[in-house]
Amino acid sequence: MAAGFKRSLTECRVGVIGLGLMGGSLALALRAHCASLSGYDVDHGALDQALARGLIDRPLELRGDQVDVLILAAPVSGILDWLARVPTVFSGQFHLIDLGSTKAQIVAAMQALPDRISPLGGHPMCGKETAGLKAADANLYRHCLFALTPLARTHAMTLDVAQQLIDVLSARPLRLDPERHDRLAAAISHVPYLTSVALVEAARRVDDEAVWTLAAAGFRDSTRLAASEVTMLLDILLSNRAGVLENLARVQTALQTLADCIGRGDRAALRSMLDAARERRSTLFV
Amino acid sequence: MAAGFKRSLTECRVGVIGLGLMGGSLALALRAHCASLSGYDVDHGALDQALARGLIDRPLELRGDQVDVLILAAPVSGILDWLARVPTVFSGQFHLIDLGSTKAQIVAAMQALPDRISPLGGHPMCGKETAGLKAADANLYRHCLFALTPLARTHAMTLDVAQQLIDVLSARPLRLDPERHDRLAAAISHVPYLTSVALVEAARRVDDEAVWTLAAAGFRDSTRLAASEVTMLLDILLSNRAGVLENLARVQTALQTLADCIGRGDRAALRSMLDAARERRSTLFV
Repeated sequence: MAAGFKRSLTECRVGVIGLGLMGGSLALALRAHCASLSGYDVDHGALDQALARGLIDRPLELRGDQVDVLILAAPVSGILDWLARVPTVFSGQFHLIDLGSTKAQIVAAMQALPDRISPLGGHPMCGKETAGLKAADANLYRHCLFALTPLARTHAMTLDVAQQLIDVLSARPLRLDPERHDRLAAAISHVPYLTSVALVEAARRVDDEAVWTLAAAGFRDSTRLAASEVTMLLDILLSNRAGVLENLARVQTALQTLADCIGRGDRAALRSMLDAARERRSTLFV
Repeated sequence: MAAGFKRSLTECRVGVIGLGLMGGSLALALRAHCASLSGYDVDHGALDQALARGLIDRPLELRGDQVDVLILAAPVSGILDWLARVPTVFSGQFHLIDLGSTKAQIVAAMQALPDRISPLGGHPMCGKETAGLKAADANLYRHCLFALTPLARTHAMTLDVAQQLIDVLSARPLRLDPERHDRLAAAISHVPYLTSVALVEAARRVDDEAVWTLAAAGFRDSTRLAASEVTMLLDILLSNRAGVLENLARVQTALQTLADCIGRGDRAALRSMLDAARERRSTLFV
């Protein structure tokens, strides 16, 4: 029988490139639900650890007909590098799904893949500050939103297999176009990261060590994202410049309006802004 | 024996004005450790509830020689109103401690009290978004930092009694002058509240309902403060205008620097800012 796109995840040889928090957690959850699971990481220590912990069956060999599903679980710039390299490295027909945090650049690069590779953009909206394989957790994806950004060329079977993968992970799929994904992700993730960083930076500039003694739960939560892995965030911010700057400008405008209200002691105008935010925020995460 | 300032909390008749989250939680923790505990709230429902739950022994009568320690647990504007009213309402010598979130305005107003009242500014740096007596919790103050802003006129025995109170609450005292307190509180609490509000406001202006579907743990934590009680925050922001605006300007400057780096794709400059924030944040709350 001729090789072709596989329809069922359980029949698939899955290869995961990038054995950090996301790739490692995915491997942990997936291994029992596919035909075989191989993995690769530029960091040989991570690869050895993944083998030792039994996350993968074997190292992914970078040649020939190795996979039916290839998952790219690297930072955005790593995914872009791999998209250029994959066609020369792997032969055969396979599904390719990435887990990158921004989608427009990646999906544009996926257009250049040969027809034998069926690409699908993906972004599981979960994670934690602790990066790396050591923090891998089979439940990381549970209940998380898994954004999918299909291309016109994405094979229907690739969407089927992605749905099976999402089911195995107990995640929830949401289809978006890549630009919309990036704009929304800027508003709810990339810009909140920047405000976290700015709050820490501003507190540093108070230049009074007691500021850290006083910092309590409010500061802890509102700056949690500032502890995120910098390399990953650099990729995100620079691959989603338009979305980030557009949403950051909205935050800057809102802060200036708040500053103006406080400066002129306009209790009524201030109250209406604070009430609106409180009302909207109170209906989330309940 | 002539009346005078009491030295031991266990001998004190304590009166608490304001039976919300802070006053109610304090009453819960304190009742077994003082001679008697009476309470007052403009909201008669809160007063009835405090009696029914056994938080207080009896309503605080607003006349004559009722208290050895008076605790003002209202929002800042309420505390300022009470400071003007207390000398005509209560006779006798007593300690007066407030729990207001900003200190410079309150401490200035305390200067006008008659000598028979020994005032001490206080600010327990704890709380939760759920306001009101229903959310009262005997452990709310446990391990929290309790800022004290003594005046030159504050009687030594008032500081003694405050220390006993802080011990009963299992909190940790920290003495600060009121202006320094307000500047630091702006950096770690009031301005993080404003960035939370601005993030919610900016997400609203994306004008795409999917933004709320995508919002995950990062957005949840970085906007948690936006759900805070608005009336209390209005008082805080408007009674600490200078501190808030000074620190908000620092955040605005940091955000603009970040925007500039992203706009010109300056990975090195961006990395150094993100690294500095990550390094500082990673050593907090560990």
